[in-house]
Amino acid sequence: MSIEIIKGFPSTSDNDYQLNIITFLKSAANTYPDVEVVSKNIDGSIFRYNYYEAFQRVKKLANALVKLGVKPGDRVGIADWNTHCFFELYFAISGIGAVALELNPRISKIDRTYVINHAEAKFIFAAETLLPIIEPIADDLNTVQSYVVITDKKSRDLKTSLAPVKSYEDILAQESADYKFPMVDETSAFAACYTSGTTGKPKGVFVSHRAMYLHTIMISGMFKMGLDDVIMQTVPMFHAQGWGVFLCAPLVGAKLVFSGMYTAETTQSLVDLMVSEKVTVNNGAPAIYMPMLEQIRSLSEKPAFSNLRMFSGATEPPLAMMKGYDELAGNIIHAYGATETTPLVTVNLLKPQLRDLSEDEKWELRKKQGLPVTGVEMKVINEAGADVPHDGETVGELLIKGPWITTTYYNDSRSADSFTNGYWKSGDAATIDKNGYIKINDRFKDLIKSGGEWISSIDLENSIMAHEGVLEATVTGLAHPKWEERPLALVKLRENFIGKVTKQEILDFISPNFAKWQLPDDIVFVDDIPKTSVGKFSKKTIRKEYKDFYTGK
Amino acid sequence: MSIEIIKGFPSTSDNDYQLNIITFLKSAANTYPDVEVVSKNIDGSIFRYNYYEAFQRVKKLANALVKLGVKPGDRVGIADWNTHCFFELYFAISGIGAVALELNPRISKIDRTYVINHAEAKFIFAAETLLPIIEPIADDLNTVQSYVVITDKKSRDLKTSLAPVKSYEDILAQESADYKFPMVDETSAFAACYTSGTTGKPKGVFVSHRAMYLHTIMISGMFKMGLDDVIMQTVPMFHAQGWGVFLCAPLVGAKLVFSGMYTAETTQSLVDLMVSEKVTVNNGAPAIYMPMLEQIRSLSEKPAFSNLRMFSGATEPPLAMMKGYDELAGNIIHAYGATETTPLVTVNLLKPQLRDLSEDEKWELRKKQGLPVTGVEMKVINEAGADVPHDGETVGELLIKGPWITTTYYNDSRSADSFTNGYWKSGDAATIDKNGYIKINDRFKDLIKSGGEWISSIDLENSIMAHEGVLEATVTGLAHPKWEERPLALVKLRENFIGKVTKQEILDFISPNFAKWQLPDDIVFVDDIPKTSVGKFSKKTIRKEYKDFYTGK
Repeated sequence: MSIEIIKGFPSTSDNDYQLNIITFLKSAANTYPDVEVVSKNIDGSIFRYNYYEAFQRVKKLANALVKLGVKPGDRVGIADWNTHCFFELYFAISGIGAVALELNPRISKIDRTYVINHAEAKFIFAAETLLPIIEPIADDLNTVQSYVVITDKKSRDLKTSLAPVKSYEDILAQESADYKFPMVDETSAFAACYTSGTTGKPKGVFVSHRAMYLHTIMISGMFKMGLDDVIMQTVPMFHAQGWGVFLCAPLVGAKLVFSGMYTAETTQSLVDLMVSEKVTVNNGAPAIYMPMLEQIRSLSEKPAFSNLRMFSGATEPPLAMMKGYDELAGNIIHAYGATETTPLVTVNLLKPQLRDLSEDEKWELRKKQGLPVTGVEMKVINEAGADVPHDGETVGELLIKGPWITTTYYNDSRSADSFTNGYWKSGDAATIDKNGYIKINDRFKDLIKSGGEWISSIDLENSIMAHEGVLEATVTGLAHPKWEERPLALVKLRENFIGKVTKQEILDFISPNFAKWQLPDDIVFVDDIPKTSVGKFSKKTIRKEYKDFYTGK
Repeated sequence: MSIEIIKGFPSTSDNDYQLNIITFLKSAANTYPDVEVVSKNIDGSIFRYNYYEAFQRVKKLANALVKLGVKPGDRVGIADWNTHCFFELYFAISGIGAVALELNPRISKIDRTYVINHAEAKFIFAAETLLPIIEPIADDLNTVQSYVVITDKKSRDLKTSLAPVKSYEDILAQESADYKFPMVDETSAFAACYTSGTTGKPKGVFVSHRAMYLHTIMISGMFKMGLDDVIMQTVPMFHAQGWGVFLCAPLVGAKLVFSGMYTAETTQSLVDLMVSEKVTVNNGAPAIYMPMLEQIRSLSEKPAFSNLRMFSGATEPPLAMMKGYDELAGNIIHAYGATETTPLVTVNLLKPQLRDLSEDEKWELRKKQGLPVTGVEMKVINEAGADVPHDGETVGELLIKGPWITTTYYNDSRSADSFTNGYWKSGDAATIDKNGYIKINDRFKDLIKSGGEWISSIDLENSIMAHEGVLEATVTGLAHPKWEERPLALVKLRENFIGKVTKQEILDFISPNFAKWQLPDDIVFVDDIPKTSVGKFSKKTIRKEYKDFYTGK
């Protein structure tokens, strides 16, 4: 359904000037040429250059892409960690009018093959360390014409089964930095990211230049990023364009730090970077921030963070974590979004009128997803399609619409299920409180339906995680012969608590917060909780593994 | 000349969702409904409501406009001071797809008649106190169908020769707040502002919704405006949309304060508002900020301003003024723009790498116009069209281009002289220093050409104004029989210095900064320096009045 657009009186403004993402880097190269861009290499060493040099390399890369045969509209796959090369690829590929296709190294081979074939990518750029995720599927890639390995080795020294193949630094070295970027129609795709649902194949979101441009300036403003910041890109850039945070840095002229390769087990390298580069802005998820907090705590010297803001997404930030950062380092600022929303659509900022809340009330508030970003229309509706009251209690589905929101999946018959009247149906169960703060209670599919009542798995999880002995916890609804579903908690204890904390102790600890029927029927202590490719708890896997847990008894 | 736009691959983003200014108020009404909007009435009393109530009234106003006969594309003139009614009119007029035509009360009757006729305005809204600027020209307005007086009197009680005429509060009172704003094509004009050149008739700039939207979000970010701010609109809203600052407030959810009616002689009311409303962001020009500083100094109790930022435009902020605010109240932040640029295109922010400059060097830096706003292309070129070196010394003309820059004047054959290759030719003589800071040395037409060399009138003016006895000073180039032009300084002394400061004392005071041939040939002490409608020194008037000053000798 399309909305009628009224014509007014013609303006004299330069409305044909297209919103192109390359503008941010070009501006930074002109206005902030000396500002540093820092990137952690695989070997742990640090690469440094500045915006002027970055733009020179991006222009060389643009020439190299053209020589490689990349044409406007082509999809170019990228498999890389958070590096300056990924940064260069985003700008050069989109700058010449092609599309940067984000390849998530954590999805299955089958899904990765599907994504590349569905997007009909003609070229793939892969970090040398990520060749093992591309080589085994190369024979099944229907449209790929050639490969580039992101490495400083010579093309002839590459050891890979991919062909034809070239080396990134090799193709750059041969080019001049003389390139004039065209003006690309702003409705054209800047990047493509496939979102993995709980079932079925990943779905393609193709974000336009216009959407990404608007998102970037809106977000950098709402977070008050400025030229005095040092911005670290920690959210993977293959995941919803890393929230576009690495684009905010050249926009505002801030120093930019790329986290390189890391896992939840190697977050010490992130802490080291934050300290050595004097980071003031970071983005990530509790799964990463929690171990980092422990590591910051164990630093021999208390780090001198200044005006540090840690943007936190994915799941609700645990209270203990927020308080820990507050004491030690800086603010955790909760934000919310999804691949379909470019992604950020809410940010948790404190309204001045709420300054007088008690400390406890403020912490409760700070856990919420926050306030809508201006320009985005959000509503929470009940099953009849009516807005729920702003009482902070009534749950409905969150629907989102606006200039940087997706209106369809690319070439996907499932789109009809996810979009309605221009709104994206988030599938998130949300409330809005009287002050306008949105809280995601759960994914609808993660709510537990017990005896006709809903139980929030997130509330249970957060309560359990507040226990000092608990490192991670997740609660899943499992089929139950009597109640339809009943909650099961999986708990990973901190090392020095293993064997010392009992199920009953945890139940006693959380029971003041819940009705008796809302408590998990059982708690299982595990070594590891299964996670998805983007680090969220994988309830799909848990449901499968524990399928008969209650029914089999 | 139009630039080729390359088509890439289609995106899945909602690119048809138009950037409409009403979005800001609609969002504020939803997300920040309780946040106050404060407006100073003519009688000195204070009007208060909030964003929710403002939006209700704007919807009523939209209904009233439709009933009045306003159609999409119509131009609707507004003659008002900075009030909540002007605020409402901007949103309601543009919201229904019509154009808010800004009527500057300070231009001549002939020019005002020209503006209204040239824009073919069909409706005029005028504050009751501004009827004297409309009534005398009503017979000469060719297209105006009806008038609305901004007052809370009943229509039948209005005393005016205008007809047909209604009262603002009367037409609102009859309407319901049930109105659904259409989506307006974003390239349509949001507002029209005529810029008065030094010669000839005013020239029409019709700013699009898109341009204003982009300008507003970019500026609010660069100035780090947020929901914890209290933003005061002091720049007249009939002058380049008041820099769009009143639009930033609903965008970020900040409290908004309208300054009401004031002149350079009644700035005490602005100081009172700043103190009583706890303003954190203000915008204005040195002509207003200077007397305000004196008034802040004379307050019996030192005001508790917190994080106050005073955005200052028009002319270079005098050092003494900046230092005065720095000690007493807050930062003066110099910004630059013009009606043709929506308006702000540079902001003076301190790059972190310059933190180690000496105090004096920092003050020198802060006087400059600043760094380009990202997204805007600016260049300084010599007469051959080549970029001047970034040495802070070589002067060229500043050219500006970008998504919120004007590319032509509305229906005006003079456009060809002011635009080239998509750039607006600012007519400003500028330098760029090695750190990228732009400094406007002068208008080309204000540079003084003496014996084949250029003398900067601005540098002379600022040096003279640094003298403790000087309140205002302007330097103009006058025809000279031998040197082509020679500078003349007009000086207005502070009251307690009148008769005590001599010409020679001022010449001695400034001579260390200039070559001997650059010094003014004469200094005239005056009671008042002629000013333009927007408060700048009127060199046009001075040149006329003192035409024979050097040649007649």
